Amino acid sequence: MPSRTKAQSEAISREAQVFIDKIPRMPCPNILARFLTGPSTVPKIRSRWAKMEDPIEESVIATQHLEFEHTVIAGVHILIINPPIIKLGMQSKVMLNIHGGGFIAATARDRSALLMAGEYGIKVYSVEYTLSPEARYPVARDQCLAVYKELTASFGAENVFGMCTSAGGQIMLSLLALAQRQKLPMMAGLVLYTPAADLSASGDSPITNAGRDVMHPTIVAAIAKKNYIGKHDTKNPLVSPLFADFEAGFPPSVITTGTRDVLLSGSLRLSWKLRDVSSRVELLVADGMWHAYHWEPEMPEAIRTRKEVYRFLDSLI
Amino acid sequence: MPSRTKAQSEAISREAQVFIDKIPRMPCPNILARFLTGPSTVPKIRSRWAKMEDPIEESVIATQHLEFEHTVIAGVHILIINPPIIKLGMQSKVMLNIHGGGFIAATARDRSALLMAGEYGIKVYSVEYTLSPEARYPVARDQCLAVYKELTASFGAENVFGMCTSAGGQIMLSLLALAQRQKLPMMAGLVLYTPAADLSASGDSPITNAGRDVMHPTIVAAIAKKNYIGKHDTKNPLVSPLFADFEAGFPPSVITTGTRDVLLSGSLRLSWKLRDVSSRVELLVADGMWHAYHWEPEMPEAIRTRKEVYRFLDSLI
Repeated sequence: MPSRTKAQSEAISREAQVFIDKIPRMPCPNILARFLTGPSTVPKIRSRWAKMEDPIEESVIATQHLEFEHTVIAGVHILIINPPIIKLGMQSKVMLNIHGGGFIAATARDRSALLMAGEYGIKVYSVEYTLSPEARYPVARDQCLAVYKELTASFGAENVFGMCTSAGGQIMLSLLALAQRQKLPMMAGLVLYTPAADLSASGDSPITNAGRDVMHPTIVAAIAKKNYIGKHDTKNPLVSPLFADFEAGFPPSVITTGTRDVLLSGSLRLSWKLRDVSSRVELLVADGMWHAYHWEPEMPEAIRTRKEVYRFLDSLI
Repeated sequence: MPSRTKAQSEAISREAQVFIDKIPRMPCPNILARFLTGPSTVPKIRSRWAKMEDPIEESVIATQHLEFEHTVIAGVHILIINPPIIKLGMQSKVMLNIHGGGFIAATARDRSALLMAGEYGIKVYSVEYTLSPEARYPVARDQCLAVYKELTASFGAENVFGMCTSAGGQIMLSLLALAQRQKLPMMAGLVLYTPAADLSASGDSPITNAGRDVMHPTIVAAIAKKNYIGKHDTKNPLVSPLFADFEAGFPPSVITTGTRDVLLSGSLRLSWKLRDVSSRVELLVADGMWHAYHWEPEMPEAIRTRKEVYRFLDSLI
């Protein structure tokens, strides 16, 4: 199947078409997966990530006139991202960000967080959790939970919002499942950009979108197992919080995904699950869009998605 | 690709697994499409439809204790479906139903409408519009628009809700686009079960779900063109209302679809479009579910979907 037919191209922007054409083909994912779980892979992925992300991040920082502070909360380094103007009604609020990157790569200077701070106008506390394999599950989750406890104690839970992307979604959802068990107060609202809710890769999209997305499910699963999950059962409700027993009072949430996203199914199933425990669940699914398409700074589909996410946050003030 | 792998099966109910196993394979859709646009096809499809639907409809009618009245509005036959108990707050309201069936089959005694009347508890006015090829586009749309005018004049637009399924979605959305142009008052809320918003079949799912759904896009498109659309351009905004310029004040809407649905992409793109003109757009996407899965009386995924649709209607009272 070509990466896009005429009928598929008609439904997406020119920018999205160009992006899709650059998605590398992965003809032998099983062999690649074995290769990419070798000892030298993680440093290579990290340096490739930085090379790809650094210029984009720097461009967003410049365009949005963002400034940084550094602090330590509960022993964990936090990057505070300050926009030049805080949105009316958000002056006393903060956004807790847990970045993506497959548990093994990326930093707190995360595109999703930079765009949120600048475009929306909110102070973002972005957690520099310890990556894998240096720390494995549940270290990052426990670090973020400790930060959550301190942030909600300082600002009041009603003034704390949460956001997360991809792997950060697993950490955030696991954290909230645990926070509910511990009877901690819930945050005021939650943005789930294509969350990795199901590390067991069940459902439709890990099959149907294999080879159509920017990441291949076989390869991602192998890397996550080797470096992050280890011997933990992927059906464990704190490893794959799609299977967690969330309780009533879960924060109002917005979930974004696309039809090419390998995490589509997990995100959709999460939306049904959260409907049972949350007063509000907004679902945004973009046709023809891939994993984490939302963070392309200039792509129309991404801009539209972030606009709806910001509108969702507006409705919570 | 098998119809369902283990990972896909894990995410859906046993009932859904059984259903998927019965979806007929269509190895040569182009040849089948040519065959199914022959002169004897429509009567055959209609009798097959009736044979399949009659016992299910009769079972829903019995279970829900539904009673019927017949009336004529604007020269069009209307089946009024009366539940034994009207839901509190819905006594003065009516639901206008436009059934599906690919423009060529099915009747006003439509499963979606029967379930709505019985399970939710609202009086449903189901339009017996003239099927194709006896009448072609835009006859059914104009019949339904005439009914809409009379219903809103009688009951007040604030007391009229709308619902539609599949092909009925094309008729309903085209009707509303035209009603907005004519400055007619808008209905109070709209249920779009897997709407056929885009008869040009653009987007991701007509490609990716070909062979995975209960209907094959090539065959459906050929039948619709032959019997309903004719020489009309499928990019015409009243033929494919996905391309219509809807105006602000569009009714609050809920849209349902599934990841196997060939109409997934059209439904998703409609959700984005309506977000710009409606105060509320609820999107329900069920993992692994096919076109019109929502109307299976006893399937858990369908029950859950209808429950959320009814909750949406509750929120509009």
